[in-house]
Amino acid sequence: MSIKQPYLMFLGDAPDQLAAKVASGVQMWRPDVCLGQYRLPGCQADLGLPDMTIAEAKAAGVETVVVGVANRGGVIPDSWRKSLVEAIEAGLDVASGLHTRLADIPEIAQAAADHGGALFDVRHPTRAFEVGHGERTPGKRLLTVGTDCSIGKMFTSLAIEKEMRARAMKVDFRATGQTGIFIVGDGVSVDAVVADFISGATEWLCPPNEPDHWDVIEGQGSLFHASFAGVSLGLLHGARADALVLCHEPTRTHMRGLPNHALPDLKAAIALNEQCGRLTNPDCRVVGVSVNTAALAEDQARACLDAVAAETGLPTVDAYRFGAGPLVDAL
Amino acid sequence: MSIKQPYLMFLGDAPDQLAAKVASGVQMWRPDVCLGQYRLPGCQADLGLPDMTIAEAKAAGVETVVVGVANRGGVIPDSWRKSLVEAIEAGLDVASGLHTRLADIPEIAQAAADHGGALFDVRHPTRAFEVGHGERTPGKRLLTVGTDCSIGKMFTSLAIEKEMRARAMKVDFRATGQTGIFIVGDGVSVDAVVADFISGATEWLCPPNEPDHWDVIEGQGSLFHASFAGVSLGLLHGARADALVLCHEPTRTHMRGLPNHALPDLKAAIALNEQCGRLTNPDCRVVGVSVNTAALAEDQARACLDAVAAETGLPTVDAYRFGAGPLVDAL
Repeated sequence: MSIKQPYLMFLGDAPDQLAAKVASGVQMWRPDVCLGQYRLPGCQADLGLPDMTIAEAKAAGVETVVVGVANRGGVIPDSWRKSLVEAIEAGLDVASGLHTRLADIPEIAQAAADHGGALFDVRHPTRAFEVGHGERTPGKRLLTVGTDCSIGKMFTSLAIEKEMRARAMKVDFRATGQTGIFIVGDGVSVDAVVADFISGATEWLCPPNEPDHWDVIEGQGSLFHASFAGVSLGLLHGARADALVLCHEPTRTHMRGLPNHALPDLKAAIALNEQCGRLTNPDCRVVGVSVNTAALAEDQARACLDAVAAETGLPTVDAYRFGAGPLVDAL
Repeated sequence: MSIKQPYLMFLGDAPDQLAAKVASGVQMWRPDVCLGQYRLPGCQADLGLPDMTIAEAKAAGVETVVVGVANRGGVIPDSWRKSLVEAIEAGLDVASGLHTRLADIPEIAQAAADHGGALFDVRHPTRAFEVGHGERTPGKRLLTVGTDCSIGKMFTSLAIEKEMRARAMKVDFRATGQTGIFIVGDGVSVDAVVADFISGATEWLCPPNEPDHWDVIEGQGSLFHASFAGVSLGLLHGARADALVLCHEPTRTHMRGLPNHALPDLKAAIALNEQCGRLTNPDCRVVGVSVNTAALAEDQARACLDAVAAETGLPTVDAYRFGAGPLVDAL
């Protein structure tokens, strides 16, 4: 992979701001690589970036048009194709996190063949992976895990990476989902690999490194999520993590998408992740908790963090809101 | 899916008996559906079945040619193609468990299009699955789990199914690997589905049923296998099993393919499988242990079963060698 930056964020005819969640996630963490936005008539999303034509984007130095918008079914509608073909004809690459492959749309594939533009379908691993070997390799690894899905694992990972960079530590954020992949331009969408290769793909993602180098690996799902726990366990084994950070959202009333499933107890979540993580790294331990307090006022948030710290006996932060310092201190 | 039986077992130019393991597994459990074998010059495997030409197989009532042979790389060599095309031209279907798809070989695909023959690539799920919902549905479910891979989970499942049928219980064996799929003509190769859909595919495999009907689900991998545990966990959650049977092989010195990984303690394996299984079925429990004693003389085998029973406090059998009665009694 390795998607060239900077980007033009393609928002299409997004019906609302939430549909542009991927684009806004990239912009939040890498504002410097988002030079502009491209919107079609009817688009209800706005990143606050300059609206650019393809020609303007090319002139501004854009390398890749990123389809940073979700829609029902994950398709690339006919109304988007003309613009994407125009981008390829102008010499830009195109990257998409939708289910439909760019390469499966004849006019887009043809334009790429004619003009040499690269197409990145980040949801679809094109590489072949080995099965996991389960052995430790040089370098340190931190993985974010969760009590549930969509709970702040990517944000926490990026906040930890940012803190480590500020301390001049050697660090790479390792992306396992589409937004993360756009942020760093590379990674593996682990929930899209064939089941036999989850841990092998994760091992590939965090190769041997210098002994004092940290891979901060974006977690996915939860060992306690009935739909996706297999992904989480393969990722945990493949990460061979020295350190885990447990991510949690205190106002959630049930597991995401599963109304009859309660969230796990924090201590149970810590224990099971450590137990399973030790299969491939006997030193694996949860070093802290990151609570997503976005739904709480600041005083409530602080009280919540104190309560979680008391319950778990671990450094507890909202890594995005208040910084990841105590988590990095705990390593 | 639903592969039509009976079968002609295609052994190609298998270099030894082990290469025909899939074919011999099918023959062992469903001798009545294996009418003959088809061998090319140089074939070193022999199932003891009548050697048949395609025409003889057709005349004998064969419906499907089963490629029941493994080779390095999982390819379908040129030397096999003429015979498979001849089978399709004769009006037979072809089923394969190899990595290479039958449908990707132009002359085979063309023959199937011309003659209406069905091609089954059982390693490649063609169906789209939903993500798992994690809810219990009517009917009883038993899943075999293991301390390791390739340890007798399919054999144990089939022995339990056989015992249940002998007792006139309502039962279906649910296949999750290629040999199992050939045995019953249907199933899902769960290690080949996209990671996000492991538990959803398993739920699809064991649909709602009569309250006293048992699905006996073939397990895969092990929660303690660093390469494949993600598959095992998704399968465990999707099975929503009322009963688990732990499978074990007492002479193994390390996890299969992982020379530095020891096998788990039996009690730890029981505890972790029950803990994780209860996420989708709070009544989930290990009802017994099935030990693969093939490497032991009968007196050693009996002593080993007694020792495992004492250690675990559970009914312990070699379900294949001595029958699955005590496991079914324990339900």
